[in-house]
Amino acid sequence: MSAPTVDNAADAGSDTVLALARAAKAASRELAVTTTATKNAVLRAAADAIEAGQQAILAANADDVARAEAAGTSSSLVDRLRLTPERIGGIADGLRQVAALADPIGNVVTGRSLPNGLALRQVRVPLGVVGIVYEARPNVTVDAFGIALKSGNAAVLRGSSSAASSNAALVSILREALTAHALPADAVVLLPSHDRSSVTELIRARGIVDVVIPRGGAGLISTVVREATVPTIETGVGNCHIYVDAGADLDVAERVIVNAKTRRPSVCNTAETVLVDRAIADTALEPILSALQAHGVMIHGDEPGMIPATETDWADEYLSLDIAVKVVDGLDGAIEHIDTYGTGHTEAIITENLAAATEFTTRVDAAAVMVNASTAFTDGEQFGFGAEIGISTQKLHARGPMGLEELTSTKWIAWGSGQTRSA
Amino acid sequence: MSAPTVDNAADAGSDTVLALARAAKAASRELAVTTTATKNAVLRAAADAIEAGQQAILAANADDVARAEAAGTSSSLVDRLRLTPERIGGIADGLRQVAALADPIGNVVTGRSLPNGLALRQVRVPLGVVGIVYEARPNVTVDAFGIALKSGNAAVLRGSSSAASSNAALVSILREALTAHALPADAVVLLPSHDRSSVTELIRARGIVDVVIPRGGAGLISTVVREATVPTIETGVGNCHIYVDAGADLDVAERVIVNAKTRRPSVCNTAETVLVDRAIADTALEPILSALQAHGVMIHGDEPGMIPATETDWADEYLSLDIAVKVVDGLDGAIEHIDTYGTGHTEAIITENLAAATEFTTRVDAAAVMVNASTAFTDGEQFGFGAEIGISTQKLHARGPMGLEELTSTKWIAWGSGQTRSA
Repeated sequence: MSAPTVDNAADAGSDTVLALARAAKAASRELAVTTTATKNAVLRAAADAIEAGQQAILAANADDVARAEAAGTSSSLVDRLRLTPERIGGIADGLRQVAALADPIGNVVTGRSLPNGLALRQVRVPLGVVGIVYEARPNVTVDAFGIALKSGNAAVLRGSSSAASSNAALVSILREALTAHALPADAVVLLPSHDRSSVTELIRARGIVDVVIPRGGAGLISTVVREATVPTIETGVGNCHIYVDAGADLDVAERVIVNAKTRRPSVCNTAETVLVDRAIADTALEPILSALQAHGVMIHGDEPGMIPATETDWADEYLSLDIAVKVVDGLDGAIEHIDTYGTGHTEAIITENLAAATEFTTRVDAAAVMVNASTAFTDGEQFGFGAEIGISTQKLHARGPMGLEELTSTKWIAWGSGQTRSA
Repeated sequence: MSAPTVDNAADAGSDTVLALARAAKAASRELAVTTTATKNAVLRAAADAIEAGQQAILAANADDVARAEAAGTSSSLVDRLRLTPERIGGIADGLRQVAALADPIGNVVTGRSLPNGLALRQVRVPLGVVGIVYEARPNVTVDAFGIALKSGNAAVLRGSSSAASSNAALVSILREALTAHALPADAVVLLPSHDRSSVTELIRARGIVDVVIPRGGAGLISTVVREATVPTIETGVGNCHIYVDAGADLDVAERVIVNAKTRRPSVCNTAETVLVDRAIADTALEPILSALQAHGVMIHGDEPGMIPATETDWADEYLSLDIAVKVVDGLDGAIEHIDTYGTGHTEAIITENLAAATEFTTRVDAAAVMVNASTAFTDGEQFGFGAEIGISTQKLHARGPMGLEELTSTKWIAWGSGQTRSA
């Protein structure tokens, strides 16, 4: 099986990865001084070109789908891989939405005049080169390019080998749109994906790549974190809990839990465990479990009638129509459980009690804490960001949904007239 | 030689490091909900206790100094290690200054009401557990504790073995001040320092330690970056350049260069290389070199009469009364040199030409860019932060001087009334 190629990646191997990353670095210096108008023009032109190139994209995607089906890939994975005219239209519209967003670059974050007259400003600048490692969905290729370009960054993309042909077709179109506007094609480069070595090279390209964002399962993320010398941003692993407090409105609890589990079980903001305050377990458990079961959810736990739970039921994401249920000793018990098993993504409390809600939101250590609302709201679009590159579950740099601003850094600029420092 | 001990660190080894880090993690959960008033009271009490405990601190420090002298340590290093009543007073005053600063915790960064009525806020929260690895100066022990505590973080300190007795004496006093105010003593823990294993354990305590800040030379920083699985913030390596543009006022150039090189040659914001525009080299070089030589600075470079320069002259910090001087082809030549050899700390241009100044500040990729001002201004106190834990030379999370806010993260909090998500 020959490796799918794109014009930037004829050969595989670490020389290629480093050469591509260096080319992206050079391009990033131009992007850093590119006007918003030019960036928007490229985004809109790329959107048009993707729609115009639909036939070529669908043909490339058909190759990927055929390979995946021949390899016996699960139908849900094949579905994530498959492009349709409608999905291609959605991808193009995503670029147009990013073009419509405000450009964060050049914003003055803060500033002051120092006593000696030095005029100091902290200005928002691009990060430089952003590496993104992701799985099957080809739309991420275009989304990541769009968000990176709008925030002035070059994108080094390492997609799934299963989507290699689709990604190559899309990246070719994006690179043409760049050169047509006199921007360097290397503002987006696609790494070879036929083996893991390109990931390793990417996360060790310190001094060339400014940040790597792994988008994928716990396995990919822990590999990246362990082996990277480039700064990374952890994303996406969400072992989210909903705590039903003694002060809960049980109708709200039932509605929120069913929504948070069943809306889209495969995404990171889905609820994986329900914690029920022992004080109301007698009355609260039955209606909640019945509502979940009515939606086809399997219940795991230690109580009678549940599928017996083991450590992995508390520690791992199901990402399916399964949920773990535990009776806990009030707020302290809930927070202790969350401290032990939570992944710092989204945690929710259901309560009408102000003190309980305040304490939960203050003490729980997570990117997002919901009071009487579905965990499904942790999402860049829902939060009003307009676009999202992932959901950070780490505390450094960015926490929660990451939009354009989260792909920027800052620079201090001081204008003077010969100031020197005495002490 | 027996390892110096502090009450929290009777034994060495990785069990101790992890146990201390875990204790700090537990303490951090209490600090996260501690009021500003209590934190300020602890800081002021610790300041008083350090002054009151001067005799014990000086005695411990005398041990360190005697050991260092017996080991033949350089006098400049012994000087950095040595405490005096005046320096102890300065350390205590530093804590009082931090107490007087505004507390960033709980500040609302942004917020909005979503269309469905969900009330969303992004609130500033502590990072949790901050690890700091540093060299001889014992004052860093107290400074780091103060900044960490005020920003709601527990501090895990790994000082130099040469300052072990001084650090143990200081940390004992800090821990007493905490317990006297009903806060956990483990809000500050001191790791064993007799070998490098405690550094390795600290930077691999993922999930317990939230960030490690290495303060020290390039060797320490590259070890930490290479081996860490905990997120780190690179600090302090400053190969800073001053570019004298064709449009420079030569009096300003001379004054700024002499100040940036000679004020304190051993610190990271000192100038290490002067780049002179070829267009004015004939007239500019002589007065600049004479002024530097009059201050005892040795000149390295490729021009006649200079000490011949090798690659390390351009790449490394001198941190001494030495400077490298190079003639470059205008602004492009200067930026190319800085892109190749700069460490992203501070870069300066001397020019009266607005276009040149604008282009330099826009294109140079560094934490701070100065126009007609000394590189020495890159400093938390000068920038008005009131306190500084280090100067970040990376782009992620914090760039430039790091004060209280740079030791925080954020948390999204959403208050609702049963909202669920449809699409």
